[in-house]
Amino acid sequence: MKTVSENACFGGVQGVYSHVSEVTDCEMTFGLFLPAEVARGPVPVLWYLSGLTCTHENAMVKAGAQAWAAEYGLALVFPDTSPRGIGVANDEAFDLGQGAGFYVNATQAPWAAHFKMWDYVAGELPRLLFNAFELDEGRQAITGHSMGGHGALTLAMGLPGRFASVSAFSPICHPSQSDWGKKQFGAYLGEDESAWAAHDASLLMAQRGFDGPMLLDTGTQDQFLDLLMPEALAGAIAKRRQQAEFRMQPGYDHSYFFVSSFMRDHVAFHAEALAG
Amino acid sequence: MKTVSENACFGGVQGVYSHVSEVTDCEMTFGLFLPAEVARGPVPVLWYLSGLTCTHENAMVKAGAQAWAAEYGLALVFPDTSPRGIGVANDEAFDLGQGAGFYVNATQAPWAAHFKMWDYVAGELPRLLFNAFELDEGRQAITGHSMGGHGALTLAMGLPGRFASVSAFSPICHPSQSDWGKKQFGAYLGEDESAWAAHDASLLMAQRGFDGPMLLDTGTQDQFLDLLMPEALAGAIAKRRQQAEFRMQPGYDHSYFFVSSFMRDHVAFHAEALAG
Repeated sequence: MKTVSENACFGGVQGVYSHVSEVTDCEMTFGLFLPAEVARGPVPVLWYLSGLTCTHENAMVKAGAQAWAAEYGLALVFPDTSPRGIGVANDEAFDLGQGAGFYVNATQAPWAAHFKMWDYVAGELPRLLFNAFELDEGRQAITGHSMGGHGALTLAMGLPGRFASVSAFSPICHPSQSDWGKKQFGAYLGEDESAWAAHDASLLMAQRGFDGPMLLDTGTQDQFLDLLMPEALAGAIAKRRQQAEFRMQPGYDHSYFFVSSFMRDHVAFHAEALAG
Repeated sequence: MKTVSENACFGGVQGVYSHVSEVTDCEMTFGLFLPAEVARGPVPVLWYLSGLTCTHENAMVKAGAQAWAAEYGLALVFPDTSPRGIGVANDEAFDLGQGAGFYVNATQAPWAAHFKMWDYVAGELPRLLFNAFELDEGRQAITGHSMGGHGALTLAMGLPGRFASVSAFSPICHPSQSDWGKKQFGAYLGEDESAWAAHDASLLMAQRGFDGPMLLDTGTQDQFLDLLMPEALAGAIAKRRQQAEFRMQPGYDHSYFFVSSFMRDHVAFHAEALAG
Protein backbone atom coordinates (compact mmCIF):
# COMPACT_ATOMS: atom_id res chain seq x y z
CA MET A 1 0.00 0.00 0.00
CA LYS A 2 1.31 3.44 -0.94
CA THR A 3 0.61 6.70 0.81
CA VAL A 4 -0.50 9.23 -1.78
CA SER A 5 -1.09 12.05 0.69
CA GLU A 6 -1.86 12.74 4.33
CA ASN A 7 -3.27 16.05 5.56
CA ALA A 8 -4.09 17.09 9.09
CA CYS A 9 -7.85 17.59 9.21
CA PHE A 10 -10.19 18.34 12.14
CA GLY A 11 -7.69 17.02 14.64
CA GLY A 12 -7.21 13.79 12.70
CA VAL A 13 -5.69 12.85 9.36
CA GLN A 14 -7.24 12.74 5.91
CA GLY A 15 -5.17 10.17 4.01
CA VAL A 16 -5.19 8.94 0.42
CA TYR A 17 -3.67 5.53 -0.28
CA SER A 18 -3.28 3.29 -3.30
CA HIS A 19 -2.71 -0.42 -3.67
CA VAL A 20 -2.71 -3.11 -6.31
CA SER A 21 -6.02 -4.91 -6.07
CA GLU A 22 -6.18 -8.62 -6.82
CA VAL A 23 -9.92 -8.44 -7.14
CA THR A 24 -10.08 -5.68 -9.74
CA ASP A 25 -6.64 -6.49 -11.16
CA CYS A 26 -5.51 -2.86 -11.23
CA GLU A 27 -4.28 -0.13 -8.93
CA MET A 28 -7.03 1.23 -6.68
CA THR A 29 -7.04 4.46 -4.68
CA PHE A 30 -9.09 5.26 -1.60
CA GLY A 31 -9.46 8.03 0.98
CA LEU A 32 -9.45 7.36 4.72
CA PHE A 33 -10.18 9.89 7.45
CA LEU A 34 -8.91 8.86 10.87
CA PRO A 35 -10.14 10.93 13.84
CA ALA A 36 -7.89 11.86 16.74
CA GLU A 37 -9.43 9.05 18.83
CA VAL A 38 -7.53 6.47 16.76
CA ALA A 39 -4.52 7.13 18.99
CA ARG A 40 -6.41 5.47 21.84
CA GLY A 41 -7.48 2.33 19.95
CA PRO A 42 -9.72 1.08 17.12
CA VAL A 43 -12.45 3.47 16.01
CA PRO A 44 -15.79 2.72 14.34
CA VAL A 45 -15.99 3.05 10.55
CA LEU A 46 -18.46 4.82 8.30
CA TRP A 47 -18.17 3.81 4.64
CA TYR A 48 -19.09 6.43 2.03
CA LEU A 49 -19.76 5.16 -1.49
CA SER A 50 -19.73 7.76 -4.24
CA GLY A 51 -21.81 8.28 -7.33
CA LEU A 52 -21.37 8.26 -11.10
CA THR A 53 -18.23 10.00 -12.43
CA CYS A 54 -16.77 10.32 -8.92
CA THR A 55 -13.43 9.03 -7.68
CA HIS A 56 -12.33 8.54 -4.07
CA GLU A 57 -11.86 12.30 -3.96
CA ASN A 58 -15.21 14.03 -4.52
CA ALA A 59 -16.89 13.35 -1.20
CA MET A 60 -13.59 13.59 0.64
CA VAL A 61 -13.28 17.20 -0.56
CA LYS A 62 -16.88 18.35 -0.93
CA ALA A 63 -19.17 16.54 1.52
CA GLY A 64 -17.92 18.16 4.72
CA ALA A 65 -18.12 14.80 6.49
CA GLN A 66 -14.84 15.07 8.39
CA ALA A 67 -16.20 17.83 10.64
CA TRP A 68 -18.88 15.47 11.97
CA ALA A 69 -16.79 12.31 11.91
CA ALA A 70 -14.28 14.15 14.10
CA GLU A 71 -17.05 15.20 16.46
CA TYR A 72 -18.22 11.60 16.91
CA GLY A 73 -14.82 9.88 16.65
CA LEU A 74 -15.61 7.90 13.49
CA ALA A 75 -13.31 6.91 10.64
CA LEU A 76 -14.51 7.57 7.10
CA VAL A 77 -13.63 5.37 4.11
CA PHE A 78 -13.99 6.76 0.60
CA PRO A 79 -13.49 3.99 -1.99
CA ASP A 80 -13.24 4.69 -5.70
CA THR A 81 -16.31 3.94 -7.84
CA SER A 82 -14.68 1.54 -10.33
CA PRO A 83 -11.43 0.03 -11.52
CA ARG A 84 -9.37 2.42 -13.62
CA GLY A 85 -6.38 2.65 -15.87
CA ILE A 86 -5.02 1.64 -19.24
CA GLY A 87 -6.19 -1.87 -20.02
CA VAL A 88 -9.40 -1.45 -18.03
CA ALA A 89 -12.49 -1.48 -20.23
CA ASN A 90 -14.38 1.77 -20.59
CA ASP A 91 -17.25 3.39 -22.43
CA GLU A 92 -17.76 6.86 -23.82
CA ALA A 93 -20.89 7.31 -21.72
CA PHE A 94 -20.43 8.79 -18.25
CA ASP A 95 -22.68 6.14 -16.74
CA LEU A 96 -20.92 2.96 -17.88
CA GLY A 97 -17.39 1.71 -17.32
CA GLN A 98 -14.78 3.69 -15.42
CA GLY A 99 -16.44 5.86 -12.77
CA ALA A 100 -19.61 3.75 -12.96
CA GLY A 101 -18.95 0.39 -11.34
CA PHE A 102 -22.40 0.17 -9.73
CA TYR A 103 -20.94 -1.98 -6.91
CA VAL A 104 -21.51 -5.28 -8.74
CA ASN A 105 -19.26 -8.12 -9.90
CA ALA A 106 -19.40 -8.05 -13.69
CA THR A 107 -19.78 -11.41 -15.39
CA GLN A 108 -19.90 -10.21 -18.99
CA ALA A 109 -17.18 -9.23 -21.48
CA PRO A 110 -15.45 -6.83 -21.62
CA TRP A 111 -16.22 -5.88 -18.02
CA ALA A 112 -15.68 -9.11 -16.11
CA ALA A 113 -11.87 -8.84 -16.08
CA HIS A 114 -11.77 -5.82 -13.74
CA PHE A 115 -15.25 -4.67 -12.71
CA LYS A 116 -15.58 -6.58 -9.42
CA MET A 117 -16.59 -3.68 -7.21
CA TRP A 118 -18.84 -5.72 -4.92
CA ASP A 119 -15.98 -8.02 -3.99
CA TYR A 120 -13.62 -5.10 -3.73
CA VAL A 121 -15.76 -3.02 -1.37
CA ALA A 122 -17.22 -5.97 0.54
CA GLY A 123 -14.07 -8.07 0.81
CA GLU A 124 -10.64 -6.97 -0.30
CA LEU A 125 -10.71 -3.34 0.84
CA PRO A 126 -12.09 -4.10 4.32
CA ARG A 127 -9.42 -6.81 4.82
CA LEU A 128 -6.74 -4.35 3.80
CA LEU A 129 -8.11 -1.60 6.05
CA PHE A 130 -8.62 -3.71 9.14
CA ASN A 131 -5.10 -5.08 8.80
CA ALA A 132 -3.42 -1.74 8.27
CA PHE A 133 -5.33 0.72 10.46
CA GLU A 134 -6.82 0.89 13.94
CA LEU A 135 -10.40 0.34 12.84
CA ASP A 136 -13.09 -1.57 14.71
CA GLU A 137 -14.40 -4.27 12.37
CA GLY A 138 -17.29 -4.91 14.74
CA ARG A 139 -18.62 -1.36 14.39
CA GLN A 140 -19.29 -0.49 10.76
CA ALA A 141 -21.96 1.61 9.09
CA ILE A 142 -22.46 2.61 5.46
CA THR A 143 -23.80 5.52 3.42
CA GLY A 144 -23.47 6.87 -0.10
CA HIS A 145 -24.76 9.24 -2.75
CA SER A 146 -26.72 8.38 -5.89
CA MET A 147 -25.05 5.29 -7.41
CA GLY A 148 -23.20 5.10 -4.09
CA GLY A 149 -26.50 5.23 -2.22
CA HIS A 150 -27.54 2.23 -4.29
CA GLY A 151 -24.25 0.60 -3.30
CA ALA A 152 -24.72 1.38 0.40
CA LEU A 153 -28.27 0.00 0.44
CA THR A 154 -27.45 -3.17 -1.50
CA LEU A 155 -24.32 -3.93 0.52
CA ALA A 156 -26.14 -3.30 3.79
CA MET A 157 -29.00 -5.61 2.89
CA GLY A 158 -26.77 -8.09 1.05
CA LEU A 159 -24.34 -8.55 3.95
CA PRO A 160 -26.60 -9.07 6.99
CA GLY A 161 -24.85 -8.38 10.28
CA ARG A 162 -22.02 -6.37 8.71
CA PHE A 163 -23.39 -2.85 9.13
CA ALA A 164 -25.14 -1.46 12.20
CA SER A 165 -26.94 1.19 10.16
CA VAL A 166 -27.37 2.34 6.58
CA SER A 167 -28.20 5.69 5.04
CA ALA A 168 -28.21 7.23 1.60
CA PHE A 169 -28.36 10.57 -0.15
CA SER A 170 -30.53 10.56 -3.30
CA PRO A 171 -29.93 6.85 -3.93
CA ILE A 172 -30.71 4.96 -7.11
CA CYS A 173 -33.51 2.91 -5.57
CA HIS A 174 -34.82 0.59 -8.25
CA PRO A 175 -32.14 0.12 -10.91
CA SER A 176 -33.68 -2.95 -12.50
CA GLN A 177 -36.57 -0.75 -13.63
CA SER A 178 -34.62 2.46 -14.34
CA ASP A 179 -32.39 3.70 -17.14
CA TRP A 180 -29.84 4.10 -14.33
CA GLY A 181 -29.55 0.38 -13.90
CA LYS A 182 -31.02 -1.54 -16.83
CA LYS A 183 -28.25 -0.45 -19.17
CA GLN A 184 -25.46 -1.15 -16.66
CA PHE A 185 -26.87 -4.39 -15.25
CA GLY A 186 -27.36 -5.64 -18.80
CA ALA A 187 -23.77 -4.80 -19.65
CA TYR A 188 -22.16 -6.04 -16.43
CA LEU A 189 -24.48 -8.92 -15.41
CA GLY A 190 -26.10 -9.97 -18.68
CA GLU A 191 -29.67 -9.98 -19.88
CA ASP A 192 -30.91 -12.58 -17.38
CA GLU A 193 -32.65 -10.30 -14.91
CA SER A 194 -32.60 -12.88 -12.12
CA ALA A 195 -28.97 -11.84 -11.53
CA TRP A 196 -30.07 -8.23 -11.07
CA ALA A 197 -32.33 -8.67 -8.05
CA ALA A 198 -29.46 -8.87 -5.54
CA HIS A 199 -28.48 -5.35 -6.65
CA ASP A 200 -31.83 -3.61 -6.50
CA ALA A 201 -32.56 -1.93 -3.16
CA SER A 202 -36.33 -1.95 -3.64
CA LEU A 203 -36.35 -5.68 -4.43
CA LEU A 204 -34.00 -6.42 -1.54
CA MET A 205 -36.26 -4.44 0.76
CA ALA A 206 -39.26 -6.46 -0.39
CA GLN A 207 -37.40 -9.75 0.05
CA ARG A 208 -35.33 -9.32 3.19
CA GLY A 209 -35.06 -5.74 4.51
CA PHE A 210 -32.36 -4.52 6.86
CA ASP A 211 -31.84 -5.42 10.51
CA GLY A 212 -31.18 -1.94 11.84
CA PRO A 213 -32.06 1.71 11.33
CA MET A 214 -32.14 3.32 7.89
CA LEU A 215 -32.06 7.02 6.91
CA LEU A 216 -32.81 8.21 3.37
CA ASP A 217 -32.69 11.79 2.07
CA THR A 218 -33.69 12.88 -1.41
CA GLY A 219 -34.31 16.42 -2.69
CA THR A 220 -37.69 17.39 -4.07
CA GLN A 221 -35.89 19.31 -6.84
CA ASP A 222 -33.48 16.49 -7.68
CA GLN A 223 -33.05 16.62 -11.43
CA PHE A 224 -32.79 12.82 -11.60
CA LEU A 225 -35.88 11.82 -9.58
CA ASP A 226 -37.34 9.80 -12.46
CA LEU A 227 -34.15 7.73 -12.61
CA LEU A 228 -33.76 7.36 -8.84
CA MET A 229 -37.32 6.08 -8.25
CA PRO A 230 -37.46 6.77 -4.52
CA GLU A 231 -41.16 5.89 -4.59
CA ALA A 232 -40.29 2.23 -5.19
CA LEU A 233 -38.09 2.02 -2.10
CA ALA A 234 -40.46 4.08 0.05
CA GLY A 235 -43.29 1.74 -0.88
CA ALA A 236 -41.21 -1.34 -0.12
CA ILE A 237 -40.14 0.11 3.25
CA ALA A 238 -43.73 0.81 4.21
CA LYS A 239 -44.96 -2.59 3.05
CA ARG A 240 -42.25 -4.42 5.00
CA ARG A 241 -42.71 -2.26 8.13
CA GLN A 242 -38.94 -1.61 7.94
CA GLN A 243 -37.49 0.68 10.62
CA ALA A 244 -36.58 3.71 8.50
CA GLU A 245 -36.69 7.45 8.11
CA PHE A 246 -37.45 8.45 4.51
CA ARG A 247 -37.21 12.19 3.87
CA MET A 248 -37.98 14.27 0.79
CA GLN A 249 -36.09 17.52 1.40
CA PRO A 250 -37.83 20.58 -0.02
CA GLY A 251 -35.91 22.52 -2.67
CA TYR A 252 -32.76 20.43 -2.71
CA ASP A 253 -31.22 18.99 -5.86
CA HIS A 254 -28.75 16.17 -6.60
CA SER A 255 -25.55 18.12 -5.88
CA TYR A 256 -23.00 18.01 -3.10
CA PHE A 257 -24.58 21.20 -1.76
CA PHE A 258 -27.46 18.88 -0.88
CA VAL A 259 -25.22 16.11 0.47
CA SER A 260 -23.20 18.46 2.68
CA SER A 261 -26.38 20.10 4.00
CA PHE A 262 -27.54 16.83 5.57
CA MET A 263 -24.21 15.17 6.32
CA ARG A 264 -24.41 16.18 9.97
CA ASP A 265 -27.70 14.31 10.35
CA HIS A 266 -26.30 11.20 8.68
CA VAL A 267 -23.08 11.04 10.67
CA ALA A 268 -24.99 11.62 13.92
CA PHE A 269 -27.46 8.90 12.92
CA HIS A 270 -24.67 6.38 12.32
CA ALA A 271 -22.76 7.42 15.45
CA GLU A 272 -25.84 6.67 17.53
CA ALA A 273 -26.29 3.26 15.92
CA LEU A 274 -22.59 2.42 16.32
CA ALA A 275 -22.63 3.40 19.98
CA GLY A 276 -25.64 1.20 20.70
CA MET B 1 -26.06 40.07 -13.90
CA LYS B 2 -26.58 36.48 -14.97
CA THR B 3 -27.46 33.54 -12.74
CA VAL B 4 -25.00 30.74 -13.45
CA SER B 5 -26.43 28.35 -10.87
CA GLU B 6 -28.43 28.25 -7.65
CA ASN B 7 -28.44 25.24 -5.33
CA ALA B 8 -30.34 24.78 -2.10
CA CYS B 9 -27.72 24.51 0.63
CA PHE B 10 -28.09 24.36 4.42
CA GLY B 11 -31.55 25.88 4.31
CA GLY B 12 -30.34 28.76 2.13
CA VAL B 13 -29.12 29.12 -1.43
CA GLN B 14 -25.61 28.82 -2.85
CA GLY B 15 -25.66 30.92 -5.99
CA VAL B 16 -23.11 31.63 -8.70
CA TYR B 17 -23.53 34.79 -10.73
CA SER B 18 -21.62 36.55 -13.48
CA HIS B 19 -21.57 40.12 -14.70
CA VAL B 20 -19.60 42.39 -16.99
CA SER B 21 -17.25 44.38 -14.80
CA GLU B 22 -16.41 47.95 -15.77
CA VAL B 23 -13.47 47.95 -13.40
CA THR B 24 -11.74 44.84 -14.73
CA ASP B 25 -13.21 45.24 -18.22
CA CYS B 26 -14.18 41.58 -18.51
CA GLU B 27 -16.82 39.15 -17.33
CA MET B 28 -16.46 38.31 -13.63
CA THR B 29 -18.02 35.41 -11.73
CA PHE B 30 -18.71 35.20 -8.00
CA GLY B 31 -20.36 32.88 -5.52
CA LEU B 32 -22.89 34.07 -2.95
CA PHE B 33 -24.39 32.03 -0.14
CA LEU B 34 -27.58 33.46 1.28
CA PRO B 35 -28.85 31.92 4.53
CA ALA B 36 -32.54 31.29 5.18
CA GLU B 37 -32.68 34.46 7.32
CA VAL B 38 -32.48 36.60 4.17
CA ALA B 39 -36.24 36.11 3.79
CA ARG B 40 -36.73 38.29 6.88
CA GLY B 41 -34.48 41.15 5.81
CA PRO B 42 -30.86 42.10 5.13
CA VAL B 43 -28.25 39.73 6.56
CA PRO B 44 -24.63 40.44 7.56
CA VAL B 45 -21.92 39.58 5.04
CA LEU B 46 -18.69 37.64 5.40
CA TRP B 47 -16.32 38.09 2.46
CA TYR B 48 -14.01 35.18 1.63
CA LEU B 49 -11.03 35.95 -0.61
CA SER B 50 -9.32 32.97 -2.21
CA GLY B 51 -5.72 32.13 -2.90
CA LEU B 52 -3.45 31.58 -5.89
CA THR B 53 -4.91 29.48 -8.74
CA CYS B 54 -8.40 29.60 -7.20
CA THR B 55 -11.58 30.86 -8.80
CA HIS B 56 -14.84 31.80 -7.04
CA GLU B 57 -15.48 28.06 -6.77
CA ASN B 58 -12.77 26.49 -4.60
CA ALA B 59 -13.79 27.74 -1.18
CA MET B 60 -17.45 27.57 -2.11
CA VAL B 61 -17.06 23.83 -2.65
CA LYS B 62 -14.28 22.84 -0.26
CA ALA B 63 -14.20 25.13 2.78
CA GLY B 64 -17.40 23.92 4.44
CA ALA B 65 -18.26 27.50 5.33
CA GLN B 66 -21.96 27.34 4.48
CA ALA B 67 -22.66 25.01 7.42
CA TRP B 68 -21.53 27.68 9.85
CA ALA B 69 -22.81 30.67 7.91
CA ALA B 70 -26.23 29.04 8.01
CA GLU B 71 -25.92 28.50 11.75
CA TYR B 72 -25.16 32.18 12.34
CA GLY B 73 -27.33 33.65 9.60
CA LEU B 74 -24.49 35.19 7.59
CA ALA B 75 -24.14 35.61 3.85
CA LEU B 76 -20.87 34.53 2.25
CA VAL B 77 -19.33 36.20 -0.81
CA PHE B 78 -16.74 34.32 -2.86
CA PRO B 79 -15.16 36.66 -5.45
CA ASP B 80 -12.84 35.40 -8.16
CA THR B 81 -9.11 36.02 -7.69
CA SER B 82 -8.43 37.91 -10.92
CA PRO B 83 -9.86 39.05 -14.22
CA ARG B 84 -10.06 36.26 -16.78
CA GLY B 85 -10.67 35.50 -20.42
CA ILE B 86 -9.31 35.95 -23.89
CA GLY B 87 -7.73 39.36 -24.15
CA VAL B 88 -6.78 39.42 -20.47
CA ALA B 89 -3.03 39.31 -19.92
CA ASN B 90 -1.62 36.17 -18.40
CA ASP B 91 1.64 34.46 -17.49
CA GLU B 92 2.75 30.86 -17.62
CA ALA B 93 3.57 30.90 -13.91
CA PHE B 94 0.76 29.94 -11.55
CA ASP B 95 1.50 32.91 -9.32
CA LEU B 96 1.19 35.77 -11.80
CA GLY B 97 -1.68 36.88 -14.01
CA GLN B 98 -4.99 35.04 -14.15
CA GLY B 99 -5.74 33.40 -10.80
CA ALA B 100 -3.18 35.64 -9.08
CA GLY B 101 -4.58 39.16 -8.89
CA PHE B 102 -3.16 39.83 -5.39
CA TYR B 103 -6.04 42.27 -4.72
CA VAL B 104 -4.18 45.30 -6.10
CA ASN B 105 -4.84 47.80 -8.89
CA ALA B 106 -2.13 47.18 -11.47
CA THR B 107 -0.50 50.26 -12.92
CA GLN B 108 1.97 48.55 -15.23
CA ALA B 109 1.68 47.07 -18.73
CA PRO B 110 0.37 44.55 -19.68
CA TRP B 111 -1.59 44.22 -16.43
CA ALA B 112 -3.10 47.65 -15.93
CA ALA B 113 -5.89 47.16 -18.47
CA HIS B 114 -7.76 44.51 -16.44
CA PHE B 115 -6.02 43.74 -13.13
CA LYS B 116 -7.93 46.12 -10.85
CA MET B 117 -8.88 43.64 -8.16
CA TRP B 118 -8.72 46.13 -5.29
CA ASP B 119 -11.28 48.38 -6.94
CA TYR B 120 -13.35 45.39 -7.94
CA VAL B 121 -13.54 43.80 -4.48
CA ALA B 122 -13.62 47.08 -2.55
CA GLY B 123 -15.94 49.00 -4.85
CA GLU B 124 -17.75 47.56 -7.82
CA LEU B 125 -18.69 44.16 -6.44
CA PRO B 126 -20.04 45.49 -3.12
CA ARG B 127 -22.15 48.06 -5.00
CA LEU B 128 -23.55 45.33 -7.20
CA LEU B 129 -24.26 43.03 -4.25
CA PHE B 130 -25.88 45.61 -2.02
CA ASN B 131 -28.12 46.70 -4.87
CA ALA B 132 -29.16 43.23 -5.92
CA PHE B 133 -29.44 41.23 -2.68
CA GLU B 134 -30.77 41.66 0.84
CA LEU B 135 -27.36 42.25 2.45
CA ASP B 136 -26.61 44.58 5.34
CA GLU B 137 -23.91 46.98 4.17
CA GLY B 138 -23.39 48.13 7.77
CA ARG B 139 -22.41 44.65 8.93
CA GLN B 140 -19.46 43.28 6.93
CA ALA B 141 -16.50 41.12 7.89
CA ILE B 142 -13.71 39.64 5.80
CA THR B 143 -11.52 36.55 5.69
CA GLY B 144 -9.41 34.68 3.16
CA HIS B 145 -6.78 32.04 2.53
CA SER B 146 -3.13 32.54 1.51
CA MET B 147 -3.14 35.28 -1.17
CA GLY B 148 -6.76 35.81 -0.09
CA GLY B 149 -5.65 36.16 3.52
CA HIS B 150 -3.30 38.89 2.31
CA GLY B 151 -6.28 40.44 0.53
CA ALA B 152 -8.51 40.25 3.59
CA LEU B 153 -5.90 41.84 5.84
CA THR B 154 -4.97 44.63 3.44
CA LEU B 155 -8.58 45.47 2.61
CA ALA B 156 -9.55 45.45 6.29
CA MET B 157 -6.71 47.78 7.26
CA GLY B 158 -6.92 49.82 4.05
CA LEU B 159 -10.65 50.56 4.39
CA PRO B 160 -11.07 51.66 8.01
CA GLY B 161 -14.63 51.33 9.26
CA ARG B 162 -15.73 48.98 6.49
CA PHE B 163 -15.24 45.64 8.24
CA ALA B 164 -16.17 44.83 11.82
CA SER B 165 -13.62 42.00 12.01
CA VAL B 166 -10.91 40.38 9.93
CA SER B 167 -9.45 36.89 9.90
CA ALA B 168 -7.16 34.87 7.69
CA PHE B 169 -6.04 31.30 7.03
CA SER B 170 -2.30 30.98 6.29
CA PRO B 171 -2.09 34.52 4.89
CA ILE B 172 0.77 35.96 2.89
CA CYS B 173 1.87 38.38 5.60
CA HIS B 174 4.77 40.36 4.25
CA PRO B 175 4.70 40.28 0.44
CA SER B 176 7.09 43.16 -0.07
CA GLN B 177 9.82 40.98 1.43
CA SER B 178 8.73 37.59 0.04
CA ASP B 179 8.94 35.83 -3.30
CA TRP B 180 5.14 35.69 -2.99
CA GLY B 181 4.89 39.43 -3.40
CA LYS B 182 8.04 40.97 -4.78
CA LYS B 183 7.59 39.40 -8.19
CA GLN B 184 3.90 40.28 -8.41
CA PHE B 185 4.13 43.78 -6.93
CA GLY B 186 7.01 44.49 -9.29
CA ALA B 187 4.93 43.35 -12.25
CA TYR B 188 1.63 44.96 -11.24
CA LEU B 189 2.76 48.08 -9.36
CA GLY B 190 6.24 48.72 -10.73
CA GLU B 191 9.64 48.78 -9.12
CA ASP B 192 8.99 51.78 -6.87
CA GLU B 193 8.44 49.99 -3.58
CA SER B 194 6.64 52.93 -2.01
CA ALA B 195 3.56 51.79 -3.94
CA TRP B 196 3.79 48.36 -2.32
CA ALA B 197 3.38 49.36 1.31
CA ALA B 198 -0.40 49.77 1.11
CA HIS B 199 -0.56 46.08 0.16
CA ASP B 200 1.66 44.58 2.83
CA ALA B 201 -0.21 43.44 5.95
CA SER B 202 2.85 43.63 8.19
CA LEU B 203 3.62 47.20 7.11
CA LEU B 204 -0.02 48.21 7.42
CA MET B 205 -0.08 46.74 10.91
CA ALA B 206 3.00 48.74 11.85
CA GLN B 207 1.54 51.93 10.39
CA ARG B 208 -2.14 51.84 11.27
CA GLY B 209 -3.44 48.49 12.56
CA PHE B 210 -7.09 47.47 12.55
CA ASP B 211 -9.90 48.87 14.66
CA GLY B 212 -11.50 45.59 15.67
CA PRO B 213 -10.74 41.96 16.44
CA MET B 214 -8.42 39.87 14.28
CA LEU B 215 -8.02 36.07 14.09
CA LEU B 216 -5.12 34.41 12.26
CA ASP B 217 -4.51 30.69 11.76
CA THR B 218 -1.44 29.14 10.14
CA GLY B 219 -0.33 25.50 10.16
CA THR B 220 3.00 24.55 11.66
CA GLN B 221 3.48 22.15 8.73
CA ASP B 222 2.50 24.67 6.07
CA GLN B 223 4.75 23.96 3.12
CA PHE B 224 4.90 27.68 2.27
CA LEU B 225 5.79 29.15 5.67
CA ASP B 226 8.95 30.79 4.34
CA LEU B 227 6.87 32.62 1.74
CA LEU B 228 4.02 33.52 4.09
CA MET B 229 6.28 35.06 6.76
CA PRO B 230 3.74 34.95 9.63
CA GLU B 231 6.54 36.03 11.99
CA ALA B 232 6.53 39.50 10.44
CA LEU B 233 2.84 40.04 11.09
CA ALA B 234 2.95 38.45 14.55
CA GLY B 235 5.77 40.78 15.49
CA ALA B 236 3.95 43.83 14.16
CA ILE B 237 0.76 42.84 16.01
CA ALA B 238 2.65 42.49 19.28
CA LYS B 239 4.53 45.74 18.76
CA ARG B 240 1.32 47.68 18.02
CA ARG B 241 -0.59 46.00 20.89
CA GLN B 242 -3.24 45.16 18.30
CA GLN B 243 -6.25 43.18 19.52
CA ALA B 244 -5.64 39.84 17.83
CA GLU B 245 -5.51 36.08 18.18
CA PHE B 246 -2.55 34.62 16.29
CA ARG B 247 -2.51 30.81 16.23
CA MET B 248 0.03 28.36 14.86
CA GLN B 249 -1.94 25.12 14.46
CA PRO B 250 0.14 22.00 15.09
CA GLY B 251 0.45 19.57 12.17
CA TYR B 252 -1.68 21.46 9.68
CA ASP B 253 -0.55 22.33 6.15
CA HIS B 254 -1.67 24.86 3.53
CA SER B 255 -4.58 22.83 2.12
CA TYR B 256 -8.33 23.21 2.33
CA PHE B 257 -8.29 20.36 4.86
CA PHE B 258 -6.69 22.96 7.12
CA VAL B 259 -9.07 25.75 6.14
CA SER B 260 -12.18 23.63 6.66
CA SER B 261 -10.89 22.40 10.02
CA PHE B 262 -10.93 25.92 11.45
CA MET B 263 -13.76 27.47 9.47
CA ARG B 264 -16.18 27.02 12.35
CA ASP B 265 -13.95 29.13 14.61
CA HIS B 266 -13.63 31.86 12.00
CA VAL B 267 -17.33 32.13 11.19
CA ALA B 268 -18.21 32.13 14.89
CA PHE B 269 -15.58 34.83 15.47
CA HIS B 270 -17.03 37.07 12.76
CA ALA B 271 -20.62 36.37 13.82
CA GLU B 272 -19.81 37.60 17.31
CA ALA B 273 -18.16 40.76 15.97
CA LEU B 274 -21.06 41.43 13.60
CA ALA B 275 -23.62 41.00 16.36
CA GLY B 276 -21.83 43.47 18.63
